Amino acid sequence: MKTKKVAVIGASGYSGEELVRLLLHHPHAELVAVTSRQNAGQTLAQVFPKFASHPKSKTLRFTEPNAGLLAKQADIVFLALPHGVAAEYAVPLLDAGCAIIDLSADFRLKSAEIYREFYAHDHPAPDLLKKAVYGLPEIYREQIKQASLVASPGCYPTSILLPVIPLLKAGLIQPAGIIADSLSGVSGAGRKAEVDYLFCECNESVRAYSVPRHRHLSEIEEQLSLAAGAKVILQFTPHLIPVNRGILTTLYLAPETHFSTAAEMNALNEKVSACYARAYGNEPFVRLLEGKALPDTKNVAGTNVIEIAWRLDPRTGRLVVLSAEDNLVKGASGQAVQSLNLLCGWPETAGLA
Amino acid sequence: MKTKKVAVIGASGYSGEELVRLLLHHPHAELVAVTSRQNAGQTLAQVFPKFASHPKSKTLRFTEPNAGLLAKQADIVFLALPHGVAAEYAVPLLDAGCAIIDLSADFRLKSAEIYREFYAHDHPAPDLLKKAVYGLPEIYREQIKQASLVASPGCYPTSILLPVIPLLKAGLIQPAGIIADSLSGVSGAGRKAEVDYLFCECNESVRAYSVPRHRHLSEIEEQLSLAAGAKVILQFTPHLIPVNRGILTTLYLAPETHFSTAAEMNALNEKVSACYARAYGNEPFVRLLEGKALPDTKNVAGTNVIEIAWRLDPRTGRLVVLSAEDNLVKGASGQAVQSLNLLCGWPETAGLA
Amino acid sequence: MKTKKVAVIGASGYSGEELVRLLLHHPHAELVAVTSRQNAGQTLAQVFPKFASHPKSKTLRFTEPNAGLLAKQADIVFLALPHGVAAEYAVPLLDAGCAIIDLSADFRLKSAEIYREFYAHDHPAPDLLKKAVYGLPEIYREQIKQASLVASPGCYPTSILLPVIPLLKAGLIQPAGIIADSLSGVSGAGRKAEVDYLFCECNESVRAYSVPRHRHLSEIEEQLSLAAGAKVILQFTPHLIPVNRGILTTLYLAPETHFSTAAEMNALNEKVSACYARAYGNEPFVRLLEGKALPDTKNVAGTNVIEIAWRLDPRTGRLVVLSAEDNLVKGASGQAVQSLNLLCGWPETAGLA
Amino acid sequence: MKTKKVAVIGASGYSGEELVRLLLHHPHAELVAVTSRQNAGQTLAQVFPKFASHPKSKTLRFTEPNAGLLAKQADIVFLALPHGVAAEYAVPLLDAGCAIIDLSADFRLKSAEIYREFYAHDHPAPDLLKKAVYGLPEIYREQIKQASLVASPGCYPTSILLPVIPLLKAGLIQPAGIIADSLSGVSGAGRKAEVDYLFCECNESVRAYSVPRHRHLSEIEEQLSLAAGAKVILQFTPHLIPVNRGILTTLYLAPETHFSTAAEMNALNEKVSACYARAYGNEPFVRLLEGKALPDTKNVAGTNVIEIAWRLDPRTGRLVVLSAEDNLVKGASGQAVQSLNLLCGWPETAGLA
Repeated sequence: MKTKKVAVIGASGYSGEELVRLLLHHPHAELVAVTSRQNAGQTLAQVFPKFASHPKSKTLRFTEPNAGLLAKQADIVFLALPHGVAAEYAVPLLDAGCAIIDLSADFRLKSAEIYREFYAHDHPAPDLLKKAVYGLPEIYREQIKQASLVASPGCYPTSILLPVIPLLKAGLIQPAGIIADSLSGVSGAGRKAEVDYLFCECNESVRAYSVPRHRHLSEIEEQLSLAAGAKVILQFTPHLIPVNRGILTTLYLAPETHFSTAAEMNALNEKVSACYARAYGNEPFVRLLEGKALPDTKNVAGTNVIEIAWRLDPRTGRLVVLSAEDNLVKGASGQAVQSLNLLCGWPETAGLA
Repeated sequence: MKTKKVAVIGASGYSGEELVRLLLHHPHAELVAVTSRQNAGQTLAQVFPKFASHPKSKTLRFTEPNAGLLAKQADIVFLALPHGVAAEYAVPLLDAGCAIIDLSADFRLKSAEIYREFYAHDHPAPDLLKKAVYGLPEIYREQIKQASLVASPGCYPTSILLPVIPLLKAGLIQPAGIIADSLSGVSGAGRKAEVDYLFCECNESVRAYSVPRHRHLSEIEEQLSLAAGAKVILQFTPHLIPVNRGILTTLYLAPETHFSTAAEMNALNEKVSACYARAYGNEPFVRLLEGKALPDTKNVAGTNVIEIAWRLDPRTGRLVVLSAEDNLVKGASGQAVQSLNLLCGWPETAGLA
Repeated sequence: MKTKKVAVIGASGYSGEELVRLLLHHPHAELVAVTSRQNAGQTLAQVFPKFASHPKSKTLRFTEPNAGLLAKQADIVFLALPHGVAAEYAVPLLDAGCAIIDLSADFRLKSAEIYREFYAHDHPAPDLLKKAVYGLPEIYREQIKQASLVASPGCYPTSILLPVIPLLKAGLIQPAGIIADSLSGVSGAGRKAEVDYLFCECNESVRAYSVPRHRHLSEIEEQLSLAAGAKVILQFTPHLIPVNRGILTTLYLAPETHFSTAAEMNALNEKVSACYARAYGNEPFVRLLEGKALPDTKNVAGTNVIEIAWRLDPRTGRLVVLSAEDNLVKGASGQAVQSLNLLCGWPETAGLA
Repeated sequence: MKTKKVAVIGASGYSGEELVRLLLHHPHAELVAVTSRQNAGQTLAQVFPKFASHPKSKTLRFTEPNAGLLAKQADIVFLALPHGVAAEYAVPLLDAGCAIIDLSADFRLKSAEIYREFYAHDHPAPDLLKKAVYGLPEIYREQIKQASLVASPGCYPTSILLPVIPLLKAGLIQPAGIIADSLSGVSGAGRKAEVDYLFCECNESVRAYSVPRHRHLSEIEEQLSLAAGAKVILQFTPHLIPVNRGILTTLYLAPETHFSTAAEMNALNEKVSACYARAYGNEPFVRLLEGKALPDTKNVAGTNVIEIAWRLDPRTGRLVVLSAEDNLVKGASGQAVQSLNLLCGWPETAGLA
């Protein structure tokens, strides 16, 4: 299989670090450049001692990000930058013929207006929004294969979209009234030196934040609306919990079908089960739980897998769906590598098993 | 103020231990007996080194529980036992003239049928269900003062009932469709030697459990129904998170009034604010958060305080209410001491400030 | 008992916050002022929601630190500042007749030269070094009672000095070759927005730091030398572990007496036991563990107690002593309040039980 | 490369689980059997949901351990059992021609007397002690290649032996007076349902245990004595800290050479550096840290790497050496797979990179 050269812009945050880890061990990708303003000049081994056993860690040095230079070095460039600055690199790199996989929120929306509504400034490159493919491989596999610009989904969106989209597409649930209650590990806040994310502020603490209007609502609602063929408004409450990695999402959904007898419940349960089996039965990175098992972040930590389970509640008439993923892997860097594999024609699980 | 003699049956679990801590420092209660089958014969200091600096810790010894003996020693007896065995002690102790404050679920329901439905066996002393007062002081203060049997609420119920009851009573929210999503520290599972609660099974893990039908639903629904004057069915999802103490509950509520304009939202917000101020403005243990603050378990750990905040969501039309409490204090032992204070005519905050 | 007015300069760090907590509940001290540059203008309740249930929290506002003003408001002023800036406030406040209890390292040394050696700059007020009393009440009780400037010990020093000083004074151990291996919770690093202390950098991590020359060596060695009547050089290795609070110190000591037979070991054990009983048998905040118990930080968290246990090792001939304390209480703010009590002639345990 | 069939007896503990993880992804080993009394009959996927994405997880079922049957199925059998029961399986399996890699302490000692001294009963198969090779590949590589019975070292021993043995062999340190102070994650205690290892007993807690005489002293001292050519007695203090994985060991060593001037210190530092470079410069799983870096368990978690750093202390004349490893990988299962690779003639890093 033909090797491709890849680079990572912004490789010193948690997602960037995880991406580097995956790419260092990827069988077909060759990591040729990593950038970071604050670490420029240092080797991978110096910045991340954990990579020091990899032969490349002593020779690969962080550089200042330079689109012109990177375009000559790499076939595909990952952007692991805070939102708002990706366009600055994406435009020249795309012009120079590189493919881009962007881990920020910058190209995830189709609508520049919704972008302005949620991000409070005009989109810097609105034309690229049309060009970008939303990098959720289980949903947009064919489009990703042809893409030059992949907008890799956020961690919360992945944990919500994968469980909900098949149900909406199958018409099994109502598009109205969806609630997503999510619990995220602290790495989701990034490697930022802020008091709020100090050990002593997070340990022995649980708290909600950005209630009721988190920015990721915009991409989640856009994708759910596409699946439903109707405008979806979501109730979403993110919480910060004291774990390094992992997102657990609990979804409260209203089935289109009323059920009250055991027979009705079993029938509906069969439909949900069949819907998920059809959608994800052959997906390498979606694990549908059976029996009494419920998703647990410790069972997906460090992997590109999302676990999904569901329960019908005959007392309330609701469908409760739960998902667990590693926010840095399936919720960020692993999913980006999955898109890389599709884009390059490699096996989708390459470097992720 | 007249001192009363108190005893704790089942003082070796987490709630029992916390109760002992509070009672050792209580200005008017004298702890005269603690029981525990497995620790019988040992002093408080031997079983709980953390209490060893208290003068009483070297002389007070755990005994086997013996209702006859305890009735002679104590005026008020706390039962900190697993559910299902409280009746065995409550009946003879009440007969002997002791007051009982029970921390188990055994006397929290009015209905013996609902008890059977949720606990899968007949109630051992159904007559006592009528006699028992539900020990939520902010709601049943006057009844607790007169009670001989106080059924102290569960930790999840407290975190849900205190925020929801005033809204239901004021007719501000619909009784239908209430969702409570709760995150609990591991001490909620008790000091039980089970693999599920080992450090390595809980640390770096988040998981839901008892979905969709947790036993505490029975007492929550009964109390909410009383407040609403109508049958309330609750959607409740408890989750286990890696903290020692604390419950954070996020409630999804449907206001009776529709709001879409800013003016409508402000008007409704005023009503909610006034409702909570009326209900809890003078309560020593309810903290209504203002401004941008949201509840955080670290701000209530070790205290008898419950924090409450709310947000109206104009996009979904919902009212989101959040609460934080220490599951072992306001959710268990602190609340039980609050009832003790009422029952004995002491200041309600005695030993709890 | 006569109430005194107290103020805290630098009340927004972890030690300052803990000090405020203790002073708010102190029976004889009245907290009249708290300062913090970044929080000036805000109330206690706004900065620390956890204090919002205290009546004073809504009226007491943080101010910019102003020695002249504070001297008029308070009888005793606590300095909870980073090292190097305490002199700026101590000099004018002492001149104005206030007593000072300093929680920083600035006045802990007797020798201005050793200060320069370890802190790499000249001491700003060397004359005060003679005036200052080292605020370890179990050792310098009488001097603290008469002091106008108390230099409250560091958290590591307290955990090492209390177990070692009695043994050195009694001549039971050799002054040479002492090793102290300490494990500290992350609050010891202060509320500083630095990447090293982010949740994800500390959780699931253990690491030593400042090996082999931590600044606190200077005060530990000075105090040990005074106790030994000879120059003591210490081997000290601090480690950072993922807990909020607590220091566990393991000390490796060489007894003056050789022991190899069981009889010799028992005899020496009696001597150590008697030495500790003499030194601390009546101390309210030193807990000498008996039997099989070993110190555990969870048994002292939130209290002003230090736990001490020891073991003679007949295989190596060494005496291993272990101590546990809460770094923010006995290691900082609780000990400072203990000094306050002595200085004001109040019961030593006031506000600390 | 020829594939070999492997089996794991006792695959439901933490070490067994980690071993299964490594073997499922091993390029040359085929996992053909896993045993566990309590899980017999269940598939790998049922017992460990985290493995459910592996194709083999749905078909490979836990069985009762049966040496006769396993001997027919597997070429090499891993024993991941509590100490004391390995002989029961090792004897018949060796007789049947299987190679054994034992993760317990049962065959780690050469001396049956020392075994009795530390384990308090006679060794059940003393003849096998001579046959067994101590499975520390960096020290016994050639012997492991020829072994039929490998006694894989304990987690604490590995963290101590790898840093100390080269220094002893080179005569750089004195064999007397060595101190090892170790901090271990809770998985080291095994998946045992005991109150001491519950989340709430370990979180926000640090404590030493087995002071001063932990059983692993026996194998550490035997190996150090072999390296020194003289009897070595060790001071060893293990501590439990609230992390899932990882051991950090701090070693206090006395150099044979006195150093006091900067020149003497530099010279000695060169010698230590050269000694470690010679011993481990080409070792794939030993990372010698340079510059200011100190070992951190988070940099080795999930890997087979041990990090080592050292500091000479001119004030005390000591050499302080620190190591970090994942107790379940380099301290147990990873090291066992490293031995498997040697034994089978595969690349030593197969399945471990």
